[in-house]
Amino acid sequence: MKYDVVVIGAGGAGYHGAFRLAKAKYNVLMADPKGELGGNCLYSGCVPSKTVREVIQTAWRLTNIANVKIPLDFSTVQDRKDYVQELRFKQHKRNMSQYETLTFYKGYVKIKDPTHVIVKTDEGKEIEAETRYMIIASGAETAKLRLPGVEYCLTSDDIFGYKTSFRKLPQDMVIIGAGYIGLEIASIFRLMGVQTHIIEMLDRALITLEDQDIVNTLLSILKLNIKFNSPVTEVKKIKDDEYEVIYSTKDGSKKSIFTNSVVLAAGRRPVIPEGAREIGLSISKTGIVVDETMKTNIPNVFATGDANGLAPYYHAAVRMSIAAANNIMANGMPVDYVDVKSIPVTIYTIPSLSYVGILPSKARKMGIEIVEAEYNMEEDVSAQIYGQKEGVLKLIFERGSMRLIGAWMIGVHSQYLINELGLAVAYGLNAKQLASFAEQHPSTNEIISYTARKVI
Amino acid sequence: MKYDVVVIGAGGAGYHGAFRLAKAKYNVLMADPKGELGGNCLYSGCVPSKTVREVIQTAWRLTNIANVKIPLDFSTVQDRKDYVQELRFKQHKRNMSQYETLTFYKGYVKIKDPTHVIVKTDEGKEIEAETRYMIIASGAETAKLRLPGVEYCLTSDDIFGYKTSFRKLPQDMVIIGAGYIGLEIASIFRLMGVQTHIIEMLDRALITLEDQDIVNTLLSILKLNIKFNSPVTEVKKIKDDEYEVIYSTKDGSKKSIFTNSVVLAAGRRPVIPEGAREIGLSISKTGIVVDETMKTNIPNVFATGDANGLAPYYHAAVRMSIAAANNIMANGMPVDYVDVKSIPVTIYTIPSLSYVGILPSKARKMGIEIVEAEYNMEEDVSAQIYGQKEGVLKLIFERGSMRLIGAWMIGVHSQYLINELGLAVAYGLNAKQLASFAEQHPSTNEIISYTARKVI
Amino acid sequence: MKYDVVVIGAGGAGYHGAFRLAKAKYNVLMADPKGELGGNCLYSGCVPSKTVREVIQTAWRLTNIANVKIPLDFSTVQDRKDYVQELRFKQHKRNMSQYETLTFYKGYVKIKDPTHVIVKTDEGKEIEAETRYMIIASGAETAKLRLPGVEYCLTSDDIFGYKTSFRKLPQDMVIIGAGYIGLEIASIFRLMGVQTHIIEMLDRALITLEDQDIVNTLLSILKLNIKFNSPVTEVKKIKDDEYEVIYSTKDGSKKSIFTNSVVLAAGRRPVIPEGAREIGLSISKTGIVVDETMKTNIPNVFATGDANGLAPYYHAAVRMSIAAANNIMANGMPVDYVDVKSIPVTIYTIPSLSYVGILPSKARKMGIEIVEAEYNMEEDVSAQIYGQKEGVLKLIFERGSMRLIGAWMIGVHSQYLINELGLAVAYGLNAKQLASFAEQHPSTNEIISYTARKVI
Amino acid sequence: MKYDVVVIGAGGAGYHGAFRLAKAKYNVLMADPKGELGGNCLYSGCVPSKTVREVIQTAWRLTNIANVKIPLDFSTVQDRKDYVQELRFKQHKRNMSQYETLTFYKGYVKIKDPTHVIVKTDEGKEIEAETRYMIIASGAETAKLRLPGVEYCLTSDDIFGYKTSFRKLPQDMVIIGAGYIGLEIASIFRLMGVQTHIIEMLDRALITLEDQDIVNTLLSILKLNIKFNSPVTEVKKIKDDEYEVIYSTKDGSKKSIFTNSVVLAAGRRPVIPEGAREIGLSISKTGIVVDETMKTNIPNVFATGDANGLAPYYHAAVRMSIAAANNIMANGMPVDYVDVKSIPVTIYTIPSLSYVGILPSKARKMGIEIVEAEYNMEEDVSAQIYGQKEGVLKLIFERGSMRLIGAWMIGVHSQYLINELGLAVAYGLNAKQLASFAEQHPSTNEIISYTARKVI
Repeated sequence: MKYDVVVIGAGGAGYHGAFRLAKAKYNVLMADPKGELGGNCLYSGCVPSKTVREVIQTAWRLTNIANVKIPLDFSTVQDRKDYVQELRFKQHKRNMSQYETLTFYKGYVKIKDPTHVIVKTDEGKEIEAETRYMIIASGAETAKLRLPGVEYCLTSDDIFGYKTSFRKLPQDMVIIGAGYIGLEIASIFRLMGVQTHIIEMLDRALITLEDQDIVNTLLSILKLNIKFNSPVTEVKKIKDDEYEVIYSTKDGSKKSIFTNSVVLAAGRRPVIPEGAREIGLSISKTGIVVDETMKTNIPNVFATGDANGLAPYYHAAVRMSIAAANNIMANGMPVDYVDVKSIPVTIYTIPSLSYVGILPSKARKMGIEIVEAEYNMEEDVSAQIYGQKEGVLKLIFERGSMRLIGAWMIGVHSQYLINELGLAVAYGLNAKQLASFAEQHPSTNEIISYTARKVI
Repeated sequence: MKYDVVVIGAGGAGYHGAFRLAKAKYNVLMADPKGELGGNCLYSGCVPSKTVREVIQTAWRLTNIANVKIPLDFSTVQDRKDYVQELRFKQHKRNMSQYETLTFYKGYVKIKDPTHVIVKTDEGKEIEAETRYMIIASGAETAKLRLPGVEYCLTSDDIFGYKTSFRKLPQDMVIIGAGYIGLEIASIFRLMGVQTHIIEMLDRALITLEDQDIVNTLLSILKLNIKFNSPVTEVKKIKDDEYEVIYSTKDGSKKSIFTNSVVLAAGRRPVIPEGAREIGLSISKTGIVVDETMKTNIPNVFATGDANGLAPYYHAAVRMSIAAANNIMANGMPVDYVDVKSIPVTIYTIPSLSYVGILPSKARKMGIEIVEAEYNMEEDVSAQIYGQKEGVLKLIFERGSMRLIGAWMIGVHSQYLINELGLAVAYGLNAKQLASFAEQHPSTNEIISYTARKVI
Repeated sequence: MKYDVVVIGAGGAGYHGAFRLAKAKYNVLMADPKGELGGNCLYSGCVPSKTVREVIQTAWRLTNIANVKIPLDFSTVQDRKDYVQELRFKQHKRNMSQYETLTFYKGYVKIKDPTHVIVKTDEGKEIEAETRYMIIASGAETAKLRLPGVEYCLTSDDIFGYKTSFRKLPQDMVIIGAGYIGLEIASIFRLMGVQTHIIEMLDRALITLEDQDIVNTLLSILKLNIKFNSPVTEVKKIKDDEYEVIYSTKDGSKKSIFTNSVVLAAGRRPVIPEGAREIGLSISKTGIVVDETMKTNIPNVFATGDANGLAPYYHAAVRMSIAAANNIMANGMPVDYVDVKSIPVTIYTIPSLSYVGILPSKARKMGIEIVEAEYNMEEDVSAQIYGQKEGVLKLIFERGSMRLIGAWMIGVHSQYLINELGLAVAYGLNAKQLASFAEQHPSTNEIISYTARKVI
Repeated sequence: MKYDVVVIGAGGAGYHGAFRLAKAKYNVLMADPKGELGGNCLYSGCVPSKTVREVIQTAWRLTNIANVKIPLDFSTVQDRKDYVQELRFKQHKRNMSQYETLTFYKGYVKIKDPTHVIVKTDEGKEIEAETRYMIIASGAETAKLRLPGVEYCLTSDDIFGYKTSFRKLPQDMVIIGAGYIGLEIASIFRLMGVQTHIIEMLDRALITLEDQDIVNTLLSILKLNIKFNSPVTEVKKIKDDEYEVIYSTKDGSKKSIFTNSVVLAAGRRPVIPEGAREIGLSISKTGIVVDETMKTNIPNVFATGDANGLAPYYHAAVRMSIAAANNIMANGMPVDYVDVKSIPVTIYTIPSLSYVGILPSKARKMGIEIVEAEYNMEEDVSAQIYGQKEGVLKLIFERGSMRLIGAWMIGVHSQYLINELGLAVAYGLNAKQLASFAEQHPSTNEIISYTARKVI
């Protein structure tokens, strides 16, 4: 068969572009081993984890503001999660059925050459297809450490995967890794009464966020139990539901923690499809190398989402997928560029941390002088209403133009506010413009104009 | 005493400007009969009502998503409300204490002439003050109907007022008026099991919102019990906690409803300070006439917030207050204009309705051709996570420029999304710009870019 | 032959889109009876007329500022014009030769059906072509009046056409029509000492510009000799180089002017290709009906430039041509819209008049309240340096948002300033933003920020 | 006497702010030793030099496009210059007379302390004044080298000063310094037949412009006669109108040029008012140190224009002056910031060079990846019409956001185009927005959208 575009992977990086191309009547072949749309995000990532987080947070919040005890059962929480996932799987199928020129296979794709692929379907069939363009949207997977006893560790897939068997809460939990996954899991399960311990090999958390003071502010609010500089060397099973986690300390000695459950939260790494290296694609440690139009070194091959590693977030993947589609429709002429810098990021701890744009450490490196404005969440009426008052908002303006170049926030609803801020960053709005806007009262967003008014 | 500026009223329309002026070392006298900052919004309006709404909604939501029954006690809800109000009263005092050149009185202000006022304090003193400028921020009050039996009716002040005695839920409630206050009250108390009936004299709800189809969409989702074309002619007390509400029907006959409680939700009207008419201020039915710089017909007198009636919302009042302060600092030269059109409005029903900018009915009148894009909230992942899926988002673009000129939304979190949309409306962002932005996933805002992508 | 796109006409509305499509490797067939790129604009319109205007204006300006007499010979001026035209014809050929997938014919195109055309070449051949998409860019032509003696009248084609025989100046000139062509011709030739008389049937000039006061301001500066309400009924040839132009007056009587030359400047009308009506294209008085994506009522047929009559200017045609190409590349999905409202217009009189956006008369109709700011060109340093001081700049802001919604200017360099203003109109910049920008000194543009500063 | 604001200097950095303050009824004292408004810019700088340039360029252009010889007399050119200067002096007086609260003295100002100054008037009087705020706008002056024979050198003041005695052209001219003044003078007088030689001590021209390739492109177009690495060591007078200019060469030997006239174009340095150092003002090599609000280290003292050295251009000075006034009206609270980076700069050679924003060398230092788009002026229709075709336009976009961050242009009208580009830089417009705009045809600006379309 001949296609206009082959899309490898049906997560956010894949199906959004595929739908756009199919809407414009391009012949598209899309394949994914899951046989479902939505990728890991929906299968075991952001959607299920945020569903769990939301149920637990809602109960915890209600206890705080209405003084009622809530008998929340974890398996009910997981049922809710499965329900939301199922709802979306069905919705995706319904959406997909609208596109007549889109063919979808459950299966792996092997790249034969830049214009030919082989789809290896679930039923063992091999289907060869010719194509003018290719979008590699093969996603990422949990990085497996070469750790003795790794087989005893849960991953986020085990905890949040669709129809997972993990439906009973352990009493305590040792989490290996203080990256965003580790912090989120600790932050969520703690509210259910689970004792959590994080063990991190490096001397700091959230290594992907350069601004140490932001990380420190978050940690001082979260008050999690974290051991730094402590590489785990082995996980031993003592008996059912009892494990020993052995780690090195700074002075070289070994220490242990005994626990009911061990979670490996050691990050994720891109999935590179079979054949990608053989056809000469340029691939770095973080993924397939692309430019801002999502084009790889092979002119008709694009790579989007976690596979290129530029911004491993679902919403970034969606944007990249659309951009690849747009550039393909212009026959590879660059017409749509992804502005990675303006894509917001949220760490869904409780409270959450969100940031966007150029943060102070980056500004310093670039030689950009900044003016900062700050708001203490304690004073925000919405935070008071929700009973979640800890946090801070910081706006970062370029001195002179007073353009908003970055922002970060810790606190309730940071994942909503960051969008208004991100839009302002993306399109160059300045302090005067933010200060002159009147956000809805009461809504957490209103602190944005309040904060801008402090410097203008 | 001589002042630079006298501010009449210490609500949002008053104290924000007063603080700004005092920050710039202007001598400011501010007075308010409440003796507290925050005005009605904090005393009995948006803050307490949204606190009550949030507690009740949280409990209701938890029941929906976690399948738990919540034994919510209304007097605990009211305690929470009082607590939040108190927190803010204290915070305002703390903030105010920072400004050395700001004098605050509890009391009424009588305007003697454009440069002189008399403050009648609580303790019966009369203090005369001279001033270069004046900001009238006297707010609004519940409109009292000339209705036999009006004394048996509760108002929103009775329900949400600070330390109110209204702490026990009635079994049912007749609400006179299908404006935003009536709809919000019905929408909130219904979730606590109260039977609500709305009786409206006109043939439609939300008369301030011109777009009939938006109102209809909201009503079809709310499924409230509303009688239209039914002017109430009398409220009779039958016995304690029992009232008869008598209303006319379209055919001229009278009908009655018997109920435990009657709520009068007949709108609000501006408060005009004593002396305002006498000094020749131009005053219309909706309030003191001002231009976009908040200047009245008397050059050194400004009027802000509900007192001018341009946009009777707290966040609008704050913005107006700042604008008046800025223009006063420029000695009355116009340097700051309020863009009333771009201020978002939310009706805090459950789900809420929010809108901003130019809606279709206005666009038609202006002769602006539009392109609309729609999103059905059923498909939004956040709405699914929250278990509040009903609703719709509509983006309204000017055909040609594809600039976002307006938007409306019914659904969970509409009060947050409307800010990102309002910012886009205020600063002329277009469909391409919205479509190229990647909002945080999962956050309700992400449907904004999804929706924009449908038309570009 | 099979093509992706057939482009009918190689003027600005045609070749820019054709080049873009060819750059993206689409197979494009373009045909034009002129056998050259650039359309009327280059052949006999804006380019040659502005070349003539510039030479004459430069000489006149030098006389004014350096007190020297310039012996300017008109045939030398026309030589210059031919030279510039030739330069561009060659340049277009050079540019076209870069596109391998673009085929160009000298000839007429007949539309057979929405996917087939017949090219009738110069050499009498008929070439049939199949196509997926079609762009009709057939331009406009001088409207011929049914006027006895019309054959004695010169048109702008005769005056400015490539290698025209019109190389000797007449002593006087009667111009029929006070539209932009009539005003420009009078304005230019007057500086060469030609006596000019304009005769206009209507009671006003520049009928396409609704704002009477702008037209009046222009006329009061131009001080041309115009008779209004005077329909010409006949042109008689008296002898070689002597004509009698007979016109009706308001009271019904006939009057005559005797003159050396008569110019017919009665406007232009769209050229509709053969077959366009037969295939069912919707065509109005002003041209082929299209939406903002340049799509006609037949989905795969687009119409751009003068052929659709939306904005009969070369730069508008170019923009439309690109938009059609972009939308075709998205397989007809709307991805690029033309914002006709934000396209600047210049009347190249001396001084010129330029305008963009929403002018006061339109604002009134739409119910938009405005704030106007004005600058008298007499005070502008650049105008003083050039010795061309007459004129005015007006900025039109939307009251409240203070967004620049329109602008107009009469004066030296208005055709340059209008671009900065148009960009501001197109992207919603406001008075504060204009006032905070510092244009180059000395450059005429600097009055833009000066003028904005008057209202903010 | 007591004033609100004392303004030291009445150039662009002084009088614009003074007018704004006076418009808002502030009591303002302004003094300038020239006794006229406009500063050096008007007295001997940009206005007269551009008047001379324009007359000469117009004559030269006319010769090129109309093939006529123009007998241009230099003393007539200088008369024109004097006439324009006089016109503006009168206009300034007329404007100033409108402000009742503004007092102007011809004289020097000595700063006694941060709230007191002494004005030493022309007539020998000393007037002491008290003030709340001060704006130092004392400008800059020609830097005098300690060069033997410096007294034989002309400066730009001698050449362009009001009513200068320099009214006869020399046959040749040696210009010391290849900064912008030297290049402009050589560029202008060459067109009048003067043989020009530039001698520069450094190894490159235009030292303030970091991008060597831009300078090289300019020089390759100008084809001026420049000796680099050649510090002048002495100027000797041989006889009337004959001088020997002696300079060192790279190998250490001395060389001479004999010439009719020597021009010293060695740059300018800030004028610091008497008393400024004594009151503790922080002053660097380039001027009085200020932040973006124009505030110095002494809170009530502001410094604007050449005196602070941030951007020594008239239009920058005007903007700074307004900003200082705005910040003073807010009692020193920062409300207006100057975005120095977005102020365009033009070198008025023939053709001129203009630039704005972040150029490639700066982008590299900051680590910003860029996409460049280029247009060769040879192809521009306006350049062809004007017969001044040499040059290039470069647009510099930030990769990803595709926001225009900088631009430079060499060619006819660069001083006009740079404003549209600067506005786009200042307010964050991107390639898509520039590409979607349709500039007036024919106007030089239209190449902006043409160029943007190359990368989007």
